[in-house]
Amino acid sequence: MLKIALAQMEVIPGRPDLNTDKMLSMIHTARTQYADIIIFPEMAIPGYLLGDTWEQQAFLRDCEAFGKQIIAASQDICIIYGNIAVDWSKRGDDGRVRKHNACFVAQNEQLIATRIKTLQPNYREFDDTRHFVSLRKLAIDLKQDVESLLEPVAVIIKNKEYHLGCIICEDGWSDDYSIDPITALTTNGALDIIINISSSPFTLGKNNKRNRVFSKQAQETGKPLIYVNNTGLQNNGKTVYTFDGFSTVYNGDGQIIAYCPPFTEKLEYIDLTIAAGGRDLSPVSVPDDFTTVSLYQAVSYGVRLFLQSIGMNKIVIGVSGGIDSAVCAALYASIIPPQNILLVNMPSKFNSKTTKDLAAQLAQNLGCLYTIMPIEQSVENTAAQLSGTPITKLTSNESFQLSISSFVLENMQARDRSSRLLAGIAAAFGGGFTCNANKSELTVGYSTLYGDQAGFLAALADLWKHQVYELANYLNTCVYGKEVIPQAVIDLVPSAELSFDQSVDEGKGDPIIYPYHDYLFRAFMEYWNRATPEDILHWYKEGSHVLEQRLGCATGLVDKIFPTPRHFIDDLERWWRLYTGMAVAKRIQAPPVLAVSRRAYGFDHREAQNSVYFTQEYLKLKHTLLSAT
Amino acid sequence: MLKIALAQMEVIPGRPDLNTDKMLSMIHTARTQYADIIIFPEMAIPGYLLGDTWEQQAFLRDCEAFGKQIIAASQDICIIYGNIAVDWSKRGDDGRVRKHNACFVAQNEQLIATRIKTLQPNYREFDDTRHFVSLRKLAIDLKQDVESLLEPVAVIIKNKEYHLGCIICEDGWSDDYSIDPITALTTNGALDIIINISSSPFTLGKNNKRNRVFSKQAQETGKPLIYVNNTGLQNNGKTVYTFDGFSTVYNGDGQIIAYCPPFTEKLEYIDLTIAAGGRDLSPVSVPDDFTTVSLYQAVSYGVRLFLQSIGMNKIVIGVSGGIDSAVCAALYASIIPPQNILLVNMPSKFNSKTTKDLAAQLAQNLGCLYTIMPIEQSVENTAAQLSGTPITKLTSNESFQLSISSFVLENMQARDRSSRLLAGIAAAFGGGFTCNANKSELTVGYSTLYGDQAGFLAALADLWKHQVYELANYLNTCVYGKEVIPQAVIDLVPSAELSFDQSVDEGKGDPIIYPYHDYLFRAFMEYWNRATPEDILHWYKEGSHVLEQRLGCATGLVDKIFPTPRHFIDDLERWWRLYTGMAVAKRIQAPPVLAVSRRAYGFDHREAQNSVYFTQEYLKLKHTLLSAT
Repeated sequence: MLKIALAQMEVIPGRPDLNTDKMLSMIHTARTQYADIIIFPEMAIPGYLLGDTWEQQAFLRDCEAFGKQIIAASQDICIIYGNIAVDWSKRGDDGRVRKHNACFVAQNEQLIATRIKTLQPNYREFDDTRHFVSLRKLAIDLKQDVESLLEPVAVIIKNKEYHLGCIICEDGWSDDYSIDPITALTTNGALDIIINISSSPFTLGKNNKRNRVFSKQAQETGKPLIYVNNTGLQNNGKTVYTFDGFSTVYNGDGQIIAYCPPFTEKLEYIDLTIAAGGRDLSPVSVPDDFTTVSLYQAVSYGVRLFLQSIGMNKIVIGVSGGIDSAVCAALYASIIPPQNILLVNMPSKFNSKTTKDLAAQLAQNLGCLYTIMPIEQSVENTAAQLSGTPITKLTSNESFQLSISSFVLENMQARDRSSRLLAGIAAAFGGGFTCNANKSELTVGYSTLYGDQAGFLAALADLWKHQVYELANYLNTCVYGKEVIPQAVIDLVPSAELSFDQSVDEGKGDPIIYPYHDYLFRAFMEYWNRATPEDILHWYKEGSHVLEQRLGCATGLVDKIFPTPRHFIDDLERWWRLYTGMAVAKRIQAPPVLAVSRRAYGFDHREAQNSVYFTQEYLKLKHTLLSAT
Repeated sequence: MLKIALAQMEVIPGRPDLNTDKMLSMIHTARTQYADIIIFPEMAIPGYLLGDTWEQQAFLRDCEAFGKQIIAASQDICIIYGNIAVDWSKRGDDGRVRKHNACFVAQNEQLIATRIKTLQPNYREFDDTRHFVSLRKLAIDLKQDVESLLEPVAVIIKNKEYHLGCIICEDGWSDDYSIDPITALTTNGALDIIINISSSPFTLGKNNKRNRVFSKQAQETGKPLIYVNNTGLQNNGKTVYTFDGFSTVYNGDGQIIAYCPPFTEKLEYIDLTIAAGGRDLSPVSVPDDFTTVSLYQAVSYGVRLFLQSIGMNKIVIGVSGGIDSAVCAALYASIIPPQNILLVNMPSKFNSKTTKDLAAQLAQNLGCLYTIMPIEQSVENTAAQLSGTPITKLTSNESFQLSISSFVLENMQARDRSSRLLAGIAAAFGGGFTCNANKSELTVGYSTLYGDQAGFLAALADLWKHQVYELANYLNTCVYGKEVIPQAVIDLVPSAELSFDQSVDEGKGDPIIYPYHDYLFRAFMEYWNRATPEDILHWYKEGSHVLEQRLGCATGLVDKIFPTPRHFIDDLERWWRLYTGMAVAKRIQAPPVLAVSRRAYGFDHREAQNSVYFTQEYLKLKHTLLSAT
């Protein structure tokens, strides 16, 4: 029997000093509990998402030095941990010193083995290949089969030899690769346990899949599999990821016999009978993670840690009486004391009494600080200054004046709220102001740059509008247990209220028809093979029900919204133009986005500010559909 | 003798339709000139920097269809071109359909050969590995040596067989890789010409190096080498790259015998005697490209094409009387008609008569539209609104008011200028407003978010302050041939003029000491192995002259600025904290940066918003230095 400690630690990216201190403390605790093995996550010492910090040799030397401290602490305990491995004698393809994402095994103050990550993810937010040389690439250099290099690590514990199959994160997700590290490990000698150390960002529903995949691996090999993932928050600049941990132990039948609760730092122990492959322990059931509970956990955990990481504890939120700002307010008020949150209502003549009252009601329900600062006077002054100041043609000494259209005036209001008021208020209040944009808006740039798109963090920007509503209900029902977000806010038609054309009292609002467009935009953005107008039109041509099924929206919706193909096509082109056009320009200057979905804006979705494009096949299809009617 | 056409075309990223039309037209022209071969750049059909557009299968099919049009146009001419090659029967590591960055050879309406890029850059702005499967990776799958797959392409022209060594861009930059495609090509059979099709973004000084490297390749193989690169503008969202073309032909002795002028679309012909390896043609000399001429060419070309690509022809520039805005104004006025440029001076009580007069003088010299819109009243109103509006504690019904510090007031001015005035003016004028920030400011976040950091493009943000001055002099001397930027602007102390502490008339100004900090920041940012405080302190400890040499700044500067190690260290830590701290947060929301250097902000310099860090070795060194004094 082996007593194994799962060190589901919160890794602070770029802080090897703090991470090492935490590890030493956990090692100490585990030793007092007579643990035989302690397992830390991938890149536990440096952190994982560090941008180009890997190009700093001083940082690499620093991580190596901290690694030696961990090795020195391994008397009477076997320590498995992730760190950067540097081969100072060799170069990577970029000409810089060669680096590997590696798993280290230490025991009795000695480094027993180093195992290099074989498969490196190069999709979504991952950038491993930019920095690290994989075992696959190393094998080519060594002119050896990569399979032959995947050997289990032998350690002697209580006078018995155990064979550990140490792999790193993506090595356990080999379906799309031409090599399977686990199969290779089983081929290369005796194997007692598979250990997967990971630094795997949270994605809604990912753990469900991971449990299926890893359970199958345990079952197929007949060996217990221990998955250790870190908690915490790491980012790529524009995109901020939570790490939920959710470390899990599977027995040789693929049953889950232990796990650490998600989003919680935890040192968990398991007594594993190797001979029985852990089959003597009772299976436990793990929570489904494709739920609103997970969504709220991830978002609230992410916001809490983001605030901690930048040392911010006072928040200003512009509240309009609409759903996005209300959810933002309720979310933040569930994380930091409401008296540290200042809600600001900034009405113009276009804002209805309905929404103004709802904003005040929200503040009252949450117990936040509240103020009303109208923008009417300032916007009028600005419009007067712009249209009243002569512009001189210096070559002819003629002059003219600018005229202010209603569209210009709309955006002027949004900027007046955010850049003039909220940014100033936040600075004076000693905090930051939030960006309340949701993913549907961000997708098509339905927001004003330096206006409602501004803020220090866009906490809801990876949530489709329907998920914002879902979160609103969850906050009322499960987090607060009372109606903090007034039901009228949830029932109101979504509107920017920037003109009388967007009057909520008349039921007028946003041009986005969320029950359909949420799903259309998701197909553009989140599908593994991105849907384009060509795909959408193909599905539409096959029948509205086919399209609705492909998109996952409600049945009967498409024909209800679009009486003719012409209407359908006009709508499709309008949003595609925005999504791939102006919205890209806006997103370049958007705040950091807290990621929860399988595809978030920013580093997870790389995009160029190129011109809008429709394929030839799309144009043909369109022609066919329009000529037929 | 072969007549070869070098098609240095402007590739429009993401527009296979337009690129194919251009190619067909060039093919037609080349055929009328009896060219035997026409060579197009890498990814000539789709463009190169497309973000995740490669995940759209409809786009891939579209590019394939356009490729067929090119093949169909190859009667009586051999066409070599770059396009995406899709293997629909296989998957990449990401599970998506397998894609290669490939070189196609077509003749007599048939596809003769496809050659896959062997080496894929995965540093700086490049992202090949995310999308494309390299020949190196394919070789592993095929269980073959990659060298054996690198075969010359045999074509028959005028009844004679020629062997073309077709490689793609990075294949010619193999120094840091374990395989050299050119050597492999020479081993695998007869070889008559090496053809390198590229899509290589401009970097100041890169062509000098390329000419050394490629010349050596031609010399070593004894074969002529033809390099064809595209022109145009492509971007990764945050970072915008010019492509200078500068296609070049080297003879078998490594001498340059022809080239296309940089930043110019050109169909150039060369009559190449294969038997003589092109040695019968006279060598020509190419311009040095590490010069202010190149810098200006790149920046002005980049701005011109960026405006074209987003369809913008009217520009608003806030002019303070300082150097950055003056250079921006002179630059834009050299690209679009001055009457389409509106210069706006936005003084507060802190702006001196000196700078206000200089701003007016600049507008006069350039013949731009000019207006003065003071911010004093608006900033006062905002401060009064913020400090005069009661904030209610709803729980106790108490209220309090915000107080506005001078620091808060400084940023308020900057935002008032950009987000209230410039953004509104630009919208009413029907154009965009520029961000005038330079690289030194961007490095340490010496700018205000939604204030002077805002704009549709940051054209100077990859230029250190000394390069801004260099460009100022060049604009006066070489572009305009007269003093459009008043000399007093160039001589003035750089200052933000946001408080009386920054009075230019008293010679007070920015906290950045550009003659030193420009070079310190460059070491942090541009060195291939990034310099960190640890490196800087090591060099400083070795002696100020060592540091000055390492940084490339003027001799004697360090001791003049820093009387003691304490002063030196305080300064170093101050800027490092900003560079890796607040400045990262600001850059996430910065406008697109026009790249000219070997490392530009944005996608070329990936960074996370992590906490500021000093290595253990740095702390030791610091301790040593401070205890010694």
